[in-house]
Amino acid sequence: MTQDFDIIVIGGGPAGVAAAIRGVQLGATVCLVENKYWGGFCLNRACVPTKLLTTTLERVKTVQSASKMGFPNAAATLNPPALFKLKDELVSYFSMGTHGLIKAKKVTPVQGRGRLAGAGRVAVDGKSYQAKAIIIAAGADWVRPAFPGSELEGVINSSQFLKEGRIPPRTLILGGSAWAVELGQFLDACGGQVMLAVRERGILNHFDQEIGQRLRSILKSSSMTIHNSCDIVSLAKDRKGLKAVLSVKEKEEAHLFDRIIYLERSPALDGLGLETVGLSDLTTNDQLATKVPGIWAVGDAVGRIPFQSHSASAMGIIAAENALGATISFNDKIVPRVAFTSPQAASVGLTEDEAEEAGYDVVTGAASMGASPMAMIQGATNGVVKVVGEKKYGELLGVHILAPFATEIIGTAALAIRMEATLDDLARTVLPHPTIAESLADAARDALDWAIYSRD
Amino acid sequence: MTQDFDIIVIGGGPAGVAAAIRGVQLGATVCLVENKYWGGFCLNRACVPTKLLTTTLERVKTVQSASKMGFPNAAATLNPPALFKLKDELVSYFSMGTHGLIKAKKVTPVQGRGRLAGAGRVAVDGKSYQAKAIIIAAGADWVRPAFPGSELEGVINSSQFLKEGRIPPRTLILGGSAWAVELGQFLDACGGQVMLAVRERGILNHFDQEIGQRLRSILKSSSMTIHNSCDIVSLAKDRKGLKAVLSVKEKEEAHLFDRIIYLERSPALDGLGLETVGLSDLTTNDQLATKVPGIWAVGDAVGRIPFQSHSASAMGIIAAENALGATISFNDKIVPRVAFTSPQAASVGLTEDEAEEAGYDVVTGAASMGASPMAMIQGATNGVVKVVGEKKYGELLGVHILAPFATEIIGTAALAIRMEATLDDLARTVLPHPTIAESLADAARDALDWAIYSRD
Repeated sequence: MTQDFDIIVIGGGPAGVAAAIRGVQLGATVCLVENKYWGGFCLNRACVPTKLLTTTLERVKTVQSASKMGFPNAAATLNPPALFKLKDELVSYFSMGTHGLIKAKKVTPVQGRGRLAGAGRVAVDGKSYQAKAIIIAAGADWVRPAFPGSELEGVINSSQFLKEGRIPPRTLILGGSAWAVELGQFLDACGGQVMLAVRERGILNHFDQEIGQRLRSILKSSSMTIHNSCDIVSLAKDRKGLKAVLSVKEKEEAHLFDRIIYLERSPALDGLGLETVGLSDLTTNDQLATKVPGIWAVGDAVGRIPFQSHSASAMGIIAAENALGATISFNDKIVPRVAFTSPQAASVGLTEDEAEEAGYDVVTGAASMGASPMAMIQGATNGVVKVVGEKKYGELLGVHILAPFATEIIGTAALAIRMEATLDDLARTVLPHPTIAESLADAARDALDWAIYSRD
Repeated sequence: MTQDFDIIVIGGGPAGVAAAIRGVQLGATVCLVENKYWGGFCLNRACVPTKLLTTTLERVKTVQSASKMGFPNAAATLNPPALFKLKDELVSYFSMGTHGLIKAKKVTPVQGRGRLAGAGRVAVDGKSYQAKAIIIAAGADWVRPAFPGSELEGVINSSQFLKEGRIPPRTLILGGSAWAVELGQFLDACGGQVMLAVRERGILNHFDQEIGQRLRSILKSSSMTIHNSCDIVSLAKDRKGLKAVLSVKEKEEAHLFDRIIYLERSPALDGLGLETVGLSDLTTNDQLATKVPGIWAVGDAVGRIPFQSHSASAMGIIAAENALGATISFNDKIVPRVAFTSPQAASVGLTEDEAEEAGYDVVTGAASMGASPMAMIQGATNGVVKVVGEKKYGELLGVHILAPFATEIIGTAALAIRMEATLDDLARTVLPHPTIAESLADAARDALDWAIYSRD
């Protein structure tokens, strides 16, 4: 027997949950198929648990700086097992909450592995489901690195690290992404020795160059080592640990580690049955439709980098609407990129380089955190708010922040770019004092040559 | 001899500094007259020093909650003298910085008491200055309360409290404003006994009612006492302290205190020489012009409640532009109100009550912090993001937040209202996950009946 729905969503992560709920709200009957964890990778293995760790890093820093802030005898030792236990509790609370949410929103949850079985059909563990539209939100899978020795025990991904729940004494992290730096800072604050091996030239390469450069220079005061233009030549087991040979700017050096953590992920297409409908990947048009009518794809499964859960849920909403007749485009230019580093980084719209490449007559403005009373109060004065605009009409093209609360503030810029705000609009928005956010207005004024608080 | 300028600004606080710098940027010669402290009340006696105290309160809470967050042995005792010393250092750093800033921006600083001396003339300690336009940014003065005994030693204002630099064992704070609650929470966290005597029915009465009610209910778990509909009947010195008789909802009760702190301020008009130009107050039109041509007024001196420094600096910028020929209106409907309480409160635009009174067909939406992963991670789940809109066209009228980082997030709403965003614009803005800010979009979706994460 085949059950009929208007929409079947495969994958119960941020993209799938949003798509399913939105579908029901628009009057459709919706079935949501999830194989493992309600809430998906974000809730169970990434955003939520990892942000608990990075928030803990902030707590460690708060206590560390407390002696300068009126607490002469502040002390706190992090107990990683207690923290990882709290993480497990939070995650299971939210995962149960997600299951409760989708039921409260009248989505029909189906536990099992969803697989396309020809046009309009999905098979889940032997049962068959049918729908006018199928939205694939199957997420991504870990990509184990390819260097010799990468198959060794001790080479783990970040989910395995979270599961182990221990701080390795010596860790090599592969890559310079937001999560690589966040994880490095956390392990460093917990007393671990950390090295980042980054293939590219900088860190946070999805952000404006200046943000990565500034963060890298801030990290010099930590005990973390960052190697750029760096590859792993080989890895071997040694009685002292995992011996990694790194090529760093064409020179080779060997180091010992207890764990090598890799963070690369790619769309999880295996076992989805794409071949039964004639698809080989989940590339979509702007409206998130795949090449096969009636099949939509959203979230990490689509492969738009960087993978971010708020991008996934925004896609989910749009795909559900389009599956039911709308023609809304998903514009990833107005999706913020965030790093829960210390200080936080956040970015939306075009970087200075991208704006130059796109042929704009570019103007930039900046407000240094050194001039911000709130940054001074927070004890974090080495950041910046940078604004990228276009000279002639004053169009706001991008905003890039390295500062406390950056992840909370960047939404102002996301809304501004969405609303096609000008630099003048941002310059004249009244923002509360004393906050980090008020620097947004002064950075915009700086781009217009009338910064009030920033100096030349 | 009389010195000539295009603009003379009286008062070197946030309003005056912004006005003076903006004037120079537009090509004017500008003289800025300040009697006491460069940076004004905000920098020297209010925003900056008090936010250091409230941020310290956050640090205390961080340490207090640390035992639940993976730090089994967290401990920190606040040393108020060390904190007040840090406050003095920060303030003198910023005050010097302000003086440096205005000189770097080519404003001519004059130290002394500025007084109008007829049309287009200002006298400063015997010297005479002349200008085409005068911008008065003279700030506000403390208003000592009027109850019998209010003249007693121990009845102090918040500047005197900051100067004393001690935590009184028993404090009575007059009023339920943002600063009253902030100060109460700080003293409470430092181990002081605190009572708030509030004449009105709620607290945070410049905010949406729901925000004040929720904060009040959160405060029930502190040891602070809040009396509403409360007046001071009399105060007398006793060998055990200051004995205050309070009328609380028509019943009288007596309590002992060491300090009574009052927080009311009104425009500082005395000694300004308003009578020499025929003015009795500094009421202005929307363009910030007083009734006398060529005289503009900005900041606290204008008497628009609540006094906030970001409102003052926004007025300063506009007054300078208008003094030089522009015709820009100052719209205080798009100025955010903020409270650095714990959790923080922030508000912009119309409250639900104001929108009803203005005759709108009101629709509201909410996102509870109980459903926010970041609020859970921060350990602060009893707040809310509330959105007020208009039904027919979906106009966004107001946003009201009680949550961590509210003061940093409210700018998104301030920009949205400035740009005449609709509920749909806010609902569809992609905001980063996991943050408190993302609740803005879900609250807007709730107002449109399609909340994804909030339940009915």
